[in-house]
Amino acid sequence: MARWPIFDPHTHIDPHRPAARHFDEVLGYHYYTELAHSAGMPADRVAPELEPDTRARNLAEYLDRIDSTVQYSWLLEIARTFHRFAHDRITPRTIGELLERADHRQDGEAWDREVWAASRLEAVFLTNEFDDPLEGWDTSAYVPCLRTDDLVLKLHEPRTIERLRAASGVDVQDYAGLRKAIGALFEKFLGRGARACAISLPPDFAPRRATPRRAVTPMRKAIHGMDLRPDEREEIRCAAFWTLAEFCAEFRLPFDLMIGPIRNVYPDGVAGGRDLFDRRVSLHDYRELFNHFREVAFPVSTLSPDAAAELVAYAWIFPNVLPMGHWWYANVPAFIAQDLRARLQALPKVKLLGYYSDAYKLEFIAPKFNMYRRVLADVLAEDAIRGRGWSIDQALDVARMVLLENPRRVFAGSGRAASSPAGI
Amino acid sequence: MARWPIFDPHTHIDPHRPAARHFDEVLGYHYYTELAHSAGMPADRVAPELEPDTRARNLAEYLDRIDSTVQYSWLLEIARTFHRFAHDRITPRTIGELLERADHRQDGEAWDREVWAASRLEAVFLTNEFDDPLEGWDTSAYVPCLRTDDLVLKLHEPRTIERLRAASGVDVQDYAGLRKAIGALFEKFLGRGARACAISLPPDFAPRRATPRRAVTPMRKAIHGMDLRPDEREEIRCAAFWTLAEFCAEFRLPFDLMIGPIRNVYPDGVAGGRDLFDRRVSLHDYRELFNHFREVAFPVSTLSPDAAAELVAYAWIFPNVLPMGHWWYANVPAFIAQDLRARLQALPKVKLLGYYSDAYKLEFIAPKFNMYRRVLADVLAEDAIRGRGWSIDQALDVARMVLLENPRRVFAGSGRAASSPAGI
Amino acid sequence: MARWPIFDPHTHIDPHRPAARHFDEVLGYHYYTELAHSAGMPADRVAPELEPDTRARNLAEYLDRIDSTVQYSWLLEIARTFHRFAHDRITPRTIGELLERADHRQDGEAWDREVWAASRLEAVFLTNEFDDPLEGWDTSAYVPCLRTDDLVLKLHEPRTIERLRAASGVDVQDYAGLRKAIGALFEKFLGRGARACAISLPPDFAPRRATPRRAVTPMRKAIHGMDLRPDEREEIRCAAFWTLAEFCAEFRLPFDLMIGPIRNVYPDGVAGGRDLFDRRVSLHDYRELFNHFREVAFPVSTLSPDAAAELVAYAWIFPNVLPMGHWWYANVPAFIAQDLRARLQALPKVKLLGYYSDAYKLEFIAPKFNMYRRVLADVLAEDAIRGRGWSIDQALDVARMVLLENPRRVFAGSGRAASSPAGI
Repeated sequence: MARWPIFDPHTHIDPHRPAARHFDEVLGYHYYTELAHSAGMPADRVAPELEPDTRARNLAEYLDRIDSTVQYSWLLEIARTFHRFAHDRITPRTIGELLERADHRQDGEAWDREVWAASRLEAVFLTNEFDDPLEGWDTSAYVPCLRTDDLVLKLHEPRTIERLRAASGVDVQDYAGLRKAIGALFEKFLGRGARACAISLPPDFAPRRATPRRAVTPMRKAIHGMDLRPDEREEIRCAAFWTLAEFCAEFRLPFDLMIGPIRNVYPDGVAGGRDLFDRRVSLHDYRELFNHFREVAFPVSTLSPDAAAELVAYAWIFPNVLPMGHWWYANVPAFIAQDLRARLQALPKVKLLGYYSDAYKLEFIAPKFNMYRRVLADVLAEDAIRGRGWSIDQALDVARMVLLENPRRVFAGSGRAASSPAGI
Repeated sequence: MARWPIFDPHTHIDPHRPAARHFDEVLGYHYYTELAHSAGMPADRVAPELEPDTRARNLAEYLDRIDSTVQYSWLLEIARTFHRFAHDRITPRTIGELLERADHRQDGEAWDREVWAASRLEAVFLTNEFDDPLEGWDTSAYVPCLRTDDLVLKLHEPRTIERLRAASGVDVQDYAGLRKAIGALFEKFLGRGARACAISLPPDFAPRRATPRRAVTPMRKAIHGMDLRPDEREEIRCAAFWTLAEFCAEFRLPFDLMIGPIRNVYPDGVAGGRDLFDRRVSLHDYRELFNHFREVAFPVSTLSPDAAAELVAYAWIFPNVLPMGHWWYANVPAFIAQDLRARLQALPKVKLLGYYSDAYKLEFIAPKFNMYRRVLADVLAEDAIRGRGWSIDQALDVARMVLLENPRRVFAGSGRAASSPAGI
Repeated sequence: MARWPIFDPHTHIDPHRPAARHFDEVLGYHYYTELAHSAGMPADRVAPELEPDTRARNLAEYLDRIDSTVQYSWLLEIARTFHRFAHDRITPRTIGELLERADHRQDGEAWDREVWAASRLEAVFLTNEFDDPLEGWDTSAYVPCLRTDDLVLKLHEPRTIERLRAASGVDVQDYAGLRKAIGALFEKFLGRGARACAISLPPDFAPRRATPRRAVTPMRKAIHGMDLRPDEREEIRCAAFWTLAEFCAEFRLPFDLMIGPIRNVYPDGVAGGRDLFDRRVSLHDYRELFNHFREVAFPVSTLSPDAAAELVAYAWIFPNVLPMGHWWYANVPAFIAQDLRARLQALPKVKLLGYYSDAYKLEFIAPKFNMYRRVLADVLAEDAIRGRGWSIDQALDVARMVLLENPRRVFAGSGRAASSPAGI
C-alpha cells in the first residue's frame, strides 16, 4: 500500500512553489508553530518578519515539547526521507545540519519534481481563490478547485464584490449580476480543468433554499457597501451558497463541504493557529440542501471528531453525501481509526473518499498519507481479515477503492455523464 | 455462546408471516435497499409494484457496491445458513440459484418453525400497533408489545382518534375519554400477554408532567378535528405520553424508549430508508420522567452513536433507566464495541439489556445476534479476561446475564411483584 | 510505573481524617451506594443514621450486582492490598471478616501514615471550602486548594455572604467589598500553601467578561437578601467568576475548571449520587475567558465523555488550556483509553495533566491511579512502542511527564516565575 500512487483531493499547495525550498517552509506549517506556541513558545519567535533560518532555529528550541505527537512524526519523516537526516530528533543542536541538507533554493523546480516522484503523486488538488488567474502550471497534475469561502462568508464586504467584478468581468450591481459573475467564474475554472468546488462553513450556518426575491434588497445593499442587519447578512450567505450549489449542479462539479470551523477564536495565536469550533453542530441543518441537489456529489468533512458518527448515518442514507477524509482536528490516528472502522463497516465501499492531506507543501503529502494508510491497514487487518475472515486480496481491493478508485471517479472532472452522485 | 437460545426483546416481525418465504422479503429489508440506493441504485428499481423476482434481481446488480458492510454479512450468513448457498457473493449471476433455494412458498408455516428452531429462538417480541387485533398466534413465543408512536405523535390527526375509538370501544370525546380508551388498550394488551410498551421519540420531544387541565382544550380541539397551534400539539404529545407512562406504572409494564429518529428527512429515499436524526439531544430532557415514574422500568435506546456515553451515565444513576441494545445507526460493531465496553465496565451487570434484532423477518435474528455475540466475546476476552484477570466462567456468567437473564427478568410479563425497576 | 510515587492534584480528602478507620467509610463512597441503589437497593439501606456495621452489611448484600464494574475492582483492590482480605468477592458471608480486618479505629493517625506510605503518595491536593480554617495539618503533604463553587453559584444566597464576611473579616456591602473579601481569601489560602483554585460549573454557564458597573446593582440586591431576576443571578455568577479569575492571574494560581455537572438531577438518589449532566456543552463558551487570562493556567476537566475530543482541540490551540485527568462519569477505562490516545497523539506532552483520584479516602488513590497507569501503559505499548517504533524508555519518559513532572510543575505553588501557563 505504501508503494501505491497518491491521489490527493484537497490541499493548499501553491502550484508555483509546491515543494519547500527552505526547511522553514516545512517548520512554518501551522501544526508546528501552533503546537510549540501552545506549549509555551511566544508567538513572536516565529514572526513573519524574521529570517527563515532564525525562525527555524527558534522553533527548534521548542520541538522537544511536542516530539511525542503524530504531527511531529510527519516532520521527522520528511527530514529523514527527503533530506537524509540521520538523527532521532530535531533539536537546537541538529537543526543547523537539517537546514543545510534541506536547502533546495538552488534546485528550483527540479526539487518539486523530485518530491513529486519520490512521493508517487498522481494528482494534487489545489484550493484556489475565486480570482486566482489559474495560469502557469500543469493543471492535470495540480488540479484547480474553486474555493468559495469568500463568496459566501464575505460577500457583504465591498472588497469581495470588487474582486468578483475584476475576476469575472461582470459589472455586478444586483443579484442577477452576481449570478452572471459566478457563472463566469465556473466557466473559467472548468475551462482550466477544475474538478471540485469547496467551502468551509461555520457551525452556525444552516443552508436554506434561496429565494432570490428575499435576497434582492440585502444583496443590493451589500453591493453598494451599505450597512446590513444580521438577518440580511444571513440572507446573503444563504443566497450565495445556494447559487453556488446550483452551478455545481449545472456544471456537474462535486461540492466539498468542510463543516465546522469558527475563525479567529484565539486571535493572538500564531498564523493558521487561531481557529476552533463549537461541537454543537448537526448535519440535520443540511437536509434541505441534500434533498434539493440530488445530482450534486457532496464530499463532506466534519471538524468536530465527535460528529463523525452522524456523518456515517447521513452518508448511509443520502446518495449524494460522501464521507471525505479526516480533517484537521480530527486528523489524528485515534479519531481516524474509530471513524474509519465505522465507515468501512456501515457504508457502501464505493462512496468512501479515504483521505486528503490538506498540505501546504508537497513534502507533507506522503507522511500524512502514510499515517492514514497505516491506520487503514490496521483496521482492515483487525476488523476485516481477523474479524470477518476476508482474504488479504479482498482487503486490498477495498483499500484501493478507498484510496484511489473512488476519488478518481468522483473527481473525474466535468462533462462526465454520471448516473449517480458517486459517479458510478 | 453461539449455541445459547435467543431472547429478542424488540423486533418488527409479523407473527402471521414471521419467516421469509421468498428471498425478496430478505433483500427488501431497508438496510439493503437504502444502502444500494445510497450507492447509486435508483429507488424505482425496488418499487413495491415490481415482481419479487425482478426486484431481487435488480437489487443484486448493486450488491457488489455494499459487500464490504456488516449489513451485507448478515445477508450472506442467511443465504449460507438457511439456504445452503455455497457461493462467496450474491451477484446477478448467482442470485437466480439463491432465489430458488430460498423459495419456501410451498412450505408455509413449516418454514417458520424451521427457522425458529435453527435459530434457537426462545421469545420474539413484536411491535404491535394499538389497534392490532392480537389474534391468531402463540403469544408466548411471539410476545405482543404495545407500540404507542401514533398515540403520542399523531393523536392530533382525526384518523388516530377514529382508530382509537374502534380499538378501545370507548367513544373518546375528551381527555377523560382518552384515558379510558388507553386504559382499555392496556387491559386488552395485557390480557393477550403483552410484556412491554414501546415508543420512538424525536429529538425535539421533552417529556413534561402532564397537567390535564392544560391539555383539556387542545385535546378537545384535536378530537374534534380542529386546527391546532404548535404549542397545543406539543401539549397533546406531552399529555398523551405522560398518560401512557402512568398506565405503564399501573400495569407494571416496562416502557421502551427509543430516542432520536426524525422521520422523513430524505423523503425520496426507499421505503424505510428516509429517517435520520439530529445528534443534539440529551437525556437531561427526560429527567422529570425518570424521577416521577420510579417504579417503571425504562429500557432506553438512543439513536445517535455519540450519545451513547450519556446513556451510560443516566443508567448508572437512575434505577429505572436500563440501557437496551444498540439501535439502527448505532448497530455497527465499531459503535457497539466502544459502547458495550463502557456499559460493562461502569454499570451494574443486572441492568444491561444486551441486544435486540429489530428484525422484520425471523432469518435476521440469528445473524444479528451472532454479530453482537462476537463483539461481546471480544470485549470480554480483551477487557475482562486479559485485562482484569477474570476466569472464562466469570465472563460467561456476565454474558449470560446480559443476553438472557436480564431481558427475561425485566420483561417477565405483568403481575410480577418486582421490588425494583430492574425486576430484582 | 506501579512503583512510582503518586502526585494527586485533585481529591476530596479530609486532612483531619484522611484514611478510612472503618470499612464503612470505604463502602460509603458514592460510587458503591449509587451503583447498588441503581441496581435495586433502596436508598435507606445506607442511611447516615444507621450504624456503620449495619450500613456496610446492608450494602454487601447488593455488591454481587455490581461486581463486574471497574469501580468494584477498586474496592476489591483496597480489601486485598490494605486489609489482606483473601476472598475473591465481598459478600454477606465475607463482609464480617473484612469489617474486622479493616477496623483501624484504634490506630488513629498511624493508619493514615501507613496508607500514605504503602501508596507511595507524594502530594494530595484537597478541595477546601473558602471558609475552611486551614489549620491542623501538614500542607506540603495535604495541599490546600480553594474551592469556589459557592462563591460563584450560591453568592445570591444570604448564607454565602455571611460565610464570606466571617472568613474574610471584610464587611461585604457591595461589589468593592466582595473584591476585597475575595482578595483576603486568596491571601489566606496562599499563605497556607494553596496551589490551585477550583470550581465545577454547570453546562449552562458561559463566562463573560465582568462589567462591574453592570453587576453593581444585582450584587447589592444579593448582599442585602433581596429577590433577584434570572438575568441578575446570571450577572452575579459571571462577575464573581471573572473576579476569581483575576485573582488567579494576580496570584499566579492555576484555576481548575471542571465543566459539566448539573446538581440534583435525581433528588431521591443516595448522597453523592444525584448529579448528572447535559451533554450539549461546548468549550466555545469559554473562549473569552481563555483569551483574556493568558497568564492563568486552566487545567480543564469535562464531564460528558463525548466532549473529550473538543478539549483536545482547545488544549491544542490555547496555551493556557491543559487537559486534566478523566473525571467522574468519564473515569472509566473505555473512555480514558480513547481520550488518552488522542491527547498523547495530538498534544504537547508537557501540557498533559494525567490523572487525579477525586478520592474521599486515601485508600482509593492507589487503586484508581493503578487503573489509569494500566490504561496508560496499554496505550503507550500499543500506539507508541508497537505502532510508532518508540523505545520503552521513550514511552516511560512520556509517562513520567504525564503522571509526575507536569503536575508538579504546573501546580508548583505561587511565587514561581513561569514564562507560560504550562509553567515552563
